[in-house]
Amino acid sequence: MKTSLDPNTWALPSPVWVVGTYDKEDKPNIMTAAWGGICNSRPPSIYVSLREATYSYGNIMARKAYTVSIPGDKHVREADYVGIASGREVDKFEATRLSPVRSELVDAPYVEEFPLIIECKVVHVENLGLHTLFVGEIKGIKADEEVLTDGKPDLQKIKPILFSSGDRGYHSVGLRLADAFTQKTPLK
Amino acid sequence: MKTSLDPNTWALPSPVWVVGTYDKEDKPNIMTAAWGGICNSRPPSIYVSLREATYSYGNIMARKAYTVSIPGDKHVREADYVGIASGREVDKFEATRLSPVRSELVDAPYVEEFPLIIECKVVHVENLGLHTLFVGEIKGIKADEEVLTDGKPDLQKIKPILFSSGDRGYHSVGLRLADAFTQKTPLK
Repeated sequence: MKTSLDPNTWALPSPVWVVGTYDKEDKPNIMTAAWGGICNSRPPSIYVSLREATYSYGNIMARKAYTVSIPGDKHVREADYVGIASGREVDKFEATRLSPVRSELVDAPYVEEFPLIIECKVVHVENLGLHTLFVGEIKGIKADEEVLTDGKPDLQKIKPILFSSGDRGYHSVGLRLADAFTQKTPLK
Repeated sequence: MKTSLDPNTWALPSPVWVVGTYDKEDKPNIMTAAWGGICNSRPPSIYVSLREATYSYGNIMARKAYTVSIPGDKHVREADYVGIASGREVDKFEATRLSPVRSELVDAPYVEEFPLIIECKVVHVENLGLHTLFVGEIKGIKADEEVLTDGKPDLQKIKPILFSSGDRGYHSVGLRLADAFTQKTPLK
C-alpha cells in the first residue's frame, strides 16, 4: 500500500549538468541544468530543458548549439553557484575561475576543468510549459584521459553529481553494482 | 587538453527506470529504460525514449499512458532482466514475481515492490531516429512511506540505480554531498 503524492518533479536521480552557450557578444556562459538526459541512440542525442527566463535560453535559440560539461563531485559548489547566478549579471566563468574553451564542432563553449564534455547541435525545440526542451544531436565528446577505461567514459572515475528534487540535495556515486545486459533469464 | 571521442550516448549518469504499460489484451508489461528524465516543472513532466521495436512502444502509442516505477538497488537483477526480455514472448511480471497494480489515474500498471512510482499521461510524441521521445505529464506519484522524509521522496532512502553506457554498468548511490541552491555567491 503506497502513499499518494501530488504531481511534482520527484522522479530521481536527475543529473547535474553544466550547459555552455555564447551570448550575442560572444561571451561564454554556463548554467546548471538538472532536467537533462540521453533521448536517442542513433543519432546519439541529448536534451536539456530550460526556462525561457534564463540567459542560456536566448543564447541557445540564437546559436542552435550548446555543450554539456559534466562536473565531478569535487565541483559541487561551482555547479550549485552557476545554477543560481545569471549570466545577465555576472561572468560566471570569471566568478568561478573555470576556463571556457571554444568547441571546434559546435558554436558553444565548454568547461576545461570538468572531465566529460558533450557537444551538441540543436535539432528540435519544444515548449512544454515552464520549460522548453532542447534536443541536441551529439556531434562530439571530449574527455580527460584519466576518466576513460578502454577508451570509454567510466562513471566510477568521473564521479558525477546526482540531484534529487524531493530532498533538494546533491548526492555522490557509490559502488559499481553489476554489469548491465547480463540477466538474460528470470531470477531463480 | 582533452581526448576527442566519437559521438555516442556517453553522457552520465542515466536513470534505471521501469516503464509500465498495458497491451491490447490488457496484459501488464514492464521494460527498463535508461533514456528518461524530468523535462518540465510546470506542469510536472517526464519523458522516456523507446525504440519502435519494443512491445512497450505499441502499448504507449495505443493507450497514451505509462508509469515509471523506480527500483531501489536491491532490484538491480530484475531491472536488468526486464530490459532484455520482450513482453511479446514472456509475461515479465510473472517471470520476476513482481506485482502489477492498476493505476487509478492513468491507463497503465506499476510495480508494487518498487518504492517510487510516477503516473503519466502522454502529451507529446517525437520520433528522433532509433528512439521515440514520449513526454508524459505527471498525473500522480506514489511512494512507500519509508522512503519519504517530510513527505517528500528522499534519494538516500530510495537508493535508485544509475546506468552508465560507457562502462555498461549499474552503479549505486553514495553519500549526500550538499544542499542544493545554497551557493549564492562565488567561492572564495
